[in-house]
Amino acid sequence: MEFTCSRPELLEGVNAVIRAVSSKPQIPVLSGIYMETNDHVLRLVATDMEIGIEYKIPVQTNQSGATVVNARVFNEMVRRLPDSPVMFSTAGDHAALKVRYHGSEVTLNTMNPQEFPLLPTILDGDRVTLKASNFKEMTRLVSFAASTDEARPWFTGVLWDFHPDGLRWVATDTHRLAMLVGEVVHQQIAEPRQLILHGKTLSDVAKLLDDDDQELHMIMTSSQVLLEADRLRVILRIIDGQYPKYQQVIPREWKTRITISVKALSEAVDRASLASIGKEGSNIVKLSMDKDSLQIRSNSPEVGHIYEEVWIDMQGEPIPIAFNYRYLQEALRVIGGDQVYLDLSGTLVPGVLRPLQDERYLYLIVPVRTV
Amino acid sequence: MEFTCSRPELLEGVNAVIRAVSSKPQIPVLSGIYMETNDHVLRLVATDMEIGIEYKIPVQTNQSGATVVNARVFNEMVRRLPDSPVMFSTAGDHAALKVRYHGSEVTLNTMNPQEFPLLPTILDGDRVTLKASNFKEMTRLVSFAASTDEARPWFTGVLWDFHPDGLRWVATDTHRLAMLVGEVVHQQIAEPRQLILHGKTLSDVAKLLDDDDQELHMIMTSSQVLLEADRLRVILRIIDGQYPKYQQVIPREWKTRITISVKALSEAVDRASLASIGKEGSNIVKLSMDKDSLQIRSNSPEVGHIYEEVWIDMQGEPIPIAFNYRYLQEALRVIGGDQVYLDLSGTLVPGVLRPLQDERYLYLIVPVRTV
Repeated sequence: MEFTCSRPELLEGVNAVIRAVSSKPQIPVLSGIYMETNDHVLRLVATDMEIGIEYKIPVQTNQSGATVVNARVFNEMVRRLPDSPVMFSTAGDHAALKVRYHGSEVTLNTMNPQEFPLLPTILDGDRVTLKASNFKEMTRLVSFAASTDEARPWFTGVLWDFHPDGLRWVATDTHRLAMLVGEVVHQQIAEPRQLILHGKTLSDVAKLLDDDDQELHMIMTSSQVLLEADRLRVILRIIDGQYPKYQQVIPREWKTRITISVKALSEAVDRASLASIGKEGSNIVKLSMDKDSLQIRSNSPEVGHIYEEVWIDMQGEPIPIAFNYRYLQEALRVIGGDQVYLDLSGTLVPGVLRPLQDERYLYLIVPVRTV
Repeated sequence: MEFTCSRPELLEGVNAVIRAVSSKPQIPVLSGIYMETNDHVLRLVATDMEIGIEYKIPVQTNQSGATVVNARVFNEMVRRLPDSPVMFSTAGDHAALKVRYHGSEVTLNTMNPQEFPLLPTILDGDRVTLKASNFKEMTRLVSFAASTDEARPWFTGVLWDFHPDGLRWVATDTHRLAMLVGEVVHQQIAEPRQLILHGKTLSDVAKLLDDDDQELHMIMTSSQVLLEADRLRVILRIIDGQYPKYQQVIPREWKTRITISVKALSEAVDRASLASIGKEGSNIVKLSMDKDSLQIRSNSPEVGHIYEEVWIDMQGEPIPIAFNYRYLQEALRVIGGDQVYLDLSGTLVPGVLRPLQDERYLYLIVPVRTV
C-alpha cells in the first residue's frame, strides 16, 4: 500500500470513522481503523458491531493494499502532522505503516486487515431518502428523550414509524416522550413498518452530516439500516423488540391551553431548578397559574425557596401540576420559535408542549404526584 | 442589608472571589461568600485560609448589613438572573437573603456573617509595586514548572527572590527549573529577602488581573502578602521554609549552543511524544544532532517508533541527550518569539532553553540517563 494525502482531508475521515471505535473493543482488531487504497481512493472503516462507519477520501495512490492501525494513536498522529503532503506506505499486509514528511518518519505498528469485519454490502430492502438537514433536525428534537438505561433497549432507541401521514420519529424514557413527523423525499416500503435505532448512535451520525440539502439514501433490511451520503456510508443495527404503543399515552384533547414565551419559561425553570437540585433536592418544580401569569415554585431545605412568575395567555381553568424540572428544561433547550403551547388536562395527566409555529412536533411530560 | 445591582457587575465579583472557595471547606462558613454593603459599595469576600479574595462593586445601597450565602448556589443563581436590575435584601444578620426581580423572588438560606474570617488589614511590611501585565507574564512563564506534590511544599511554590538585579521568579519540581528576572515599578524592602508563594494560587490570581498597565501594590509581612489592585484585594499565605539554592544548578557556560525554531521544535516533540506515551511508554525522547539538523527519536513496543528532523544552527560539538518529552513540551508552549537557544554542556548535564529575544528568561531541564 502506498498513497499521498494532506492532513485536513485525512483528519476529516479519521474524525468521521473514529465515532464507531469502541473504548472497550470486543476483539483487538476493533480498536483499529481499517485503511484500504485502490484506484485513487482511500477507504477508512471502523466499527463496534453496533455502528459501522466507512469514509472515502480521494488520494494519490501508487500501490493498492490494506492495513489496520490503532485508532487512538493514528488519530493523535494525524492531528499533529505538518500541512505539507504526507506519504503513507506498507511493505505488505503484515508490515508496519511508514508515514513520511520532510525528512521525518513515523513507523506505526499494524494489525492484520484480513481479521477486520468490513461493512456488509446491502442491496435488498425497503428504501427511503431524507434530506440531511431533516435527519439532523429529527435527531436534535427527538433523540434526547430516549433513555440511557441499556437494561431496557427499546427505550434507548428512537422509533421510526412509517405512517401514512409521514415518517414519525418517537423517543421516550417513560417519563417523557418526543414525537416529530418527519419529511421524506422519497420512500419505497413493502408494507407499513416500525424500526428502532439507538438514539445516541443517531446523534453521532447526525454530527457527521453537513447542515444542507444533501440527500441521504437509506436501505433497511430486517436487522440493519445502511445510510449513504457522499463520501460516507453508515451501517446501524436495528434494535430487536416491539416498541410500546406510544399513541395511547398522547392526550387527544386539552382542557387548558397556556401560551408562553419559550425564552421566559426556559429562564424561569433554569432559576427555579436551583432550589430543587442538590442532596435534598426533589428535582420538582410546581406550576400554578391564573389568567395571565404562570407561577413556578421550588424549594429545598439546603438552598431555600424560589418563586418565579411568567406572563402567559390561558384558555380554560387553572390546573396546578408538578414536573421534574429536567424534563421541562431539556425540551425547552431544543424547541425553537418564540412561543409554545403547554396543554394540560388534569393534575395527574401528562402535559404537552407544542411549538406554535410547528405542528409536526410535540413533547409530553408525565407529571409528578405531590402532597 | 438592602441593595440593587445588575447581573454583569455582580457576576464579575462572584467570578473573582469564588476562586478562593475551597471544594472541601474546613469549617461550614467557608463554603460561603461574605457580602457586606456600606456606603454604596458591596464587598464580596471568600477564603480557604490559603488565599483570601475581596472584591468591591459599586451598588445602590438602601441599608447597610452583612450576610453569608453558599458560594456554589449563589454563583449558579447570579448566572441565571435576568438583565434587569435585581434587588437583594435581608431582614437582619440571621435572616434569609431575598432576591427580587420582575414579579419573582428567590429566598436563599444564609450563614452567620460574624463567623466569617475576614481578611486582615495589613499596614506594615515590605512594599513592592508591579505592573499587572508583568505579574501575568511572570506567572505564565514560571508557575507551571512548580511541583503539584504537596508533600514537599517548597516545590509547589514560586520563589520571589529580591535580588540587586531585579525580582527573580523561580519555580522547580527538581526535574526542571524556570527563572524570570521580573520588572519592578517601585520597591521598598528593609533587607534582601526571599519568599515562597503557592504556584497554582499565583496562576489563579493572574487570571483575575486585566492584561494592562494597571499597577499592583503589594505589602509583604513575614507570613502573608497583600495584593491590591483597583476593586480587588488578595491575601496570600507565604509558604514556610528555605528554598533550595537554585543558582547552583544553573550551568554558567555552555559547550554546545543550538539555535532552533520554537514552532518546529514544538511540533516535532509533540509528534515524537506519541511513541513515548501509553502503558509501555518511557516518556523519553532522544536527541542527537549534526551541524544543521537535530534528530529526535522515540519508540514504544505498543505504538512503533518515530524519527523527527528539525533544521538548526549549531555552535560546538554534538552532544547526544535524552529528555522527558513533557518537560520540553510544557516550556515550548509558553516561550514566545521565533527562536530559542538550547544550550548543552554534556549528556548528563542539564540543558537550558533561552529565548533569543529575551535574556530575562531561562528554562533548565535535567536529562534522563539512557542505556
